[in-house]
Amino acid sequence: MSKKLTKRSENYSKWYNELVVMADLAENSSVRGCMVIKPYGYAIWEKIQHELDLKFKETGHYNAYFPLFVPKSLFEAEEKNAEGFAKECAVVTHYRLKNDDKNPGKLIVDENSKLEEELIVRPTSEAIIWRTYKNWIQSYRDLPILLNQWANVVRWEMRTRLFLRTAEFLWQEGHTAHATEQEALDETKLIIDLYANFVENFMGISVISGLKSDSEKFAGAEETYCIESLMQDGKALQAGTSHFLGQNFAKAFDVKFADKQGNLDHVWATSWGVSTRLMGALIMSHGDDNGLVLPPKLAPYQIVIIPIFKSEKELEDITNYVNPIIKGIRESGFTVKFDNRLNQKPGFKFNEHEIKGVPIRIAVGPRDLKENTLEIFRRDTLTKKNLKSSDAITEIKFLIEDIQKTLYERSKDFMTTNTKVAENYEDFKNLIEHGGFVLAHWDGTEETEELIKKETKATIRCIPFESNDSGLCIVTGKKSKGMVFFARSY
Amino acid sequence: MSKKLTKRSENYSKWYNELVVMADLAENSSVRGCMVIKPYGYAIWEKIQHELDLKFKETGHYNAYFPLFVPKSLFEAEEKNAEGFAKECAVVTHYRLKNDDKNPGKLIVDENSKLEEELIVRPTSEAIIWRTYKNWIQSYRDLPILLNQWANVVRWEMRTRLFLRTAEFLWQEGHTAHATEQEALDETKLIIDLYANFVENFMGISVISGLKSDSEKFAGAEETYCIESLMQDGKALQAGTSHFLGQNFAKAFDVKFADKQGNLDHVWATSWGVSTRLMGALIMSHGDDNGLVLPPKLAPYQIVIIPIFKSEKELEDITNYVNPIIKGIRESGFTVKFDNRLNQKPGFKFNEHEIKGVPIRIAVGPRDLKENTLEIFRRDTLTKKNLKSSDAITEIKFLIEDIQKTLYERSKDFMTTNTKVAENYEDFKNLIEHGGFVLAHWDGTEETEELIKKETKATIRCIPFESNDSGLCIVTGKKSKGMVFFARSY
Repeated sequence: MSKKLTKRSENYSKWYNELVVMADLAENSSVRGCMVIKPYGYAIWEKIQHELDLKFKETGHYNAYFPLFVPKSLFEAEEKNAEGFAKECAVVTHYRLKNDDKNPGKLIVDENSKLEEELIVRPTSEAIIWRTYKNWIQSYRDLPILLNQWANVVRWEMRTRLFLRTAEFLWQEGHTAHATEQEALDETKLIIDLYANFVENFMGISVISGLKSDSEKFAGAEETYCIESLMQDGKALQAGTSHFLGQNFAKAFDVKFADKQGNLDHVWATSWGVSTRLMGALIMSHGDDNGLVLPPKLAPYQIVIIPIFKSEKELEDITNYVNPIIKGIRESGFTVKFDNRLNQKPGFKFNEHEIKGVPIRIAVGPRDLKENTLEIFRRDTLTKKNLKSSDAITEIKFLIEDIQKTLYERSKDFMTTNTKVAENYEDFKNLIEHGGFVLAHWDGTEETEELIKKETKATIRCIPFESNDSGLCIVTGKKSKGMVFFARSY
Repeated sequence: MSKKLTKRSENYSKWYNELVVMADLAENSSVRGCMVIKPYGYAIWEKIQHELDLKFKETGHYNAYFPLFVPKSLFEAEEKNAEGFAKECAVVTHYRLKNDDKNPGKLIVDENSKLEEELIVRPTSEAIIWRTYKNWIQSYRDLPILLNQWANVVRWEMRTRLFLRTAEFLWQEGHTAHATEQEALDETKLIIDLYANFVENFMGISVISGLKSDSEKFAGAEETYCIESLMQDGKALQAGTSHFLGQNFAKAFDVKFADKQGNLDHVWATSWGVSTRLMGALIMSHGDDNGLVLPPKLAPYQIVIIPIFKSEKELEDITNYVNPIIKGIRESGFTVKFDNRLNQKPGFKFNEHEIKGVPIRIAVGPRDLKENTLEIFRRDTLTKKNLKSSDAITEIKFLIEDIQKTLYERSKDFMTTNTKVAENYEDFKNLIEHGGFVLAHWDGTEETEELIKKETKATIRCIPFESNDSGLCIVTGKKSKGMVFFARSY
């Protein structure tokens, strides 16, 4: 903790990398591109999991578990999907090690254990799941199937960054099967709305949602819906996606169902996911130069109480003084940690909980005991005040709500302020240089999209669901159906 | 559901395999040895996870996440551990696929993507975790570390069976680091007691606990504590293990800490785990010839209500009749499903929920509406009775407790009845032939253990923690420190 965190204005990227480690969220492992998620980081991920899991179940989804491995022949069945992931696949080729006769104590791969067919470590599970659904679906009575799984996946990334892009990451992936196109489309939309609602109301991060352009959509999907958020450096981050897969996987795996009249048709599909990447969004949306800032709904402990004492007797007195407050906090449904470590000084503790983003800090010293007071500090605004201990619970209730609200409003204001409309391509180039979302008319072609990307490094982040005013493309002057969101992105 | 379940007395093994599939718990996948855990089976696993997770947290443990892959050089560092798992390792050797020029649409492994060092898909995580702990531990202040992870692991088994032995399985693995030997030993014992308590009080399965013999202990451990349960066919099943690892991993990965006086010493370790194998124990402990029997604490839904109706009007009347009962059940903290499917007959539903082991079934028909009655059926005893609907909640409260208790007592009685003492080796051979635990004196040598295994297929399941009366080995006549539990096992 002796090391000072780099300021965001100095080097945003360095600030992020340092913060992830200093706040005890995660670290790089001795496996290339794979991270260790540390207890404090994992506790935040558990809160994300718990809330999403509730929302999935409330909307009729069940959890299940499918194999980690995908045989190569299944993997390649849906060609676009296979093509999209082929270049980043970890491949299992052998199932045994043996002693290395030349190096005692060392092991080598046993060549006699070569697999007849290679196994791909799942980069996503459509293939293995649709092969399974083939056996589960015969008639309309078997539909819909609404499943989700919490799992690890592997995509062999060359340049990795903690949480944002790692070779292995944790996620949830929903895979649903439907009798009609409309039902699958409704499911796709239901989930992107569920994600948007979760990220805004639970994580306190403002998002926009809409469709991906064809070049940015999921490999194997007909349409990809996404939510995008804006980081403090003005770059966009894709926070979640929901895919309408049409009948692509049903056709690749020959999954048909008989409708009420006995007619056979291919099944309609969706898939959707969010990952530990959300942790990156959380850090970059709310963090400040002092460290992490957590919305109360995601904090492993929402309140920390730090005793200021010089003797064990003083600590004992403070403990007796705060015990009823701790009880009151817990009875109000909040989580609190009493940091009574003897081997660390208050200054160290203040710093540690600040960098870890604990929403509320309470400090109590010997004078507070005489005056029946305490000092309360809110992490989001870095402000503190003294109050009567009898007012503590009321104030905490207010702060828990207010910090959550303040963080969201700050995020929303930031996005609003940093979303600009480009009147023409020159204007666009200028705006993109300053970061943020740029709304602009686009002619709908991949060529124009590619040109803009090449010249400005900006991509189409999303196409709004509701078409806004039509106009003329900023590059080609051709007709546009509405403005789309551009940004440079993570 | 038209297929009839094989009777346990006809073929216990076949009964098990059929039941897993017919109760919708799991099925084999298209990946050799890997299973698909279906929603109903996964919901039971979630209940197991949830309760264990609470118990781990209550005892001061935190969750974290470590990489799926272990570089070969780390894997081989602790030699005994490496030797124990080398023969069943899935090995990743490449990280990319490419198009097969000879077969359009097909993919092949890109030989240019060969990894410099092979990656082992974790069969257990001691190696990767102790490599990480090396960076986390410098002084006694950093200890203890009490971590757990929920993860998938892969052990390449040649003969697999759903839940009992699969190439990939789900589990939790605890990995703790301590300053003293005694503290690590206490942790090892704390966890085996926690497991025993959970399996008995939550899963309703009676267990014995104790030490493994040297030949049966975990590869890399100094001592393995275990809990063992007895299945209805008289074979034992290892339900959980807790390992005292001594300083083996600390030495292999050079993990030292400075004590208060500044002296350096290697860190002491434990690891412990239970897996989806517990699902196998659950099925085989309580199941009967009609299907699965679930203890209420593990049932995805504890009560099912089945309406008996001929018209939609009748269904509507029954719905109005049972709604207050459903409300009362939920307010009492129990889970209930109202099976109002129109396209299935009551007989089909009765059968389905029976094979799925739902603890309590309530049936309501038109006559019940007139007489203010309902029929209530308990799955454990297969008995039913009619009662006034106003007595329903009282009866349900009683049944939820009583079914849980009855299942445990049945399991305990079964174990007691099937635990015999062998006076001599002839006696031993006879008893082992009939199944169950056999307590016998053993001279403590691997030779005798091996001989018994070879001649009777029985292994030492555990050595009781508290040494009982000393005596003479049934095979060699040499001195024995106490009787140990033998059985044939899964």
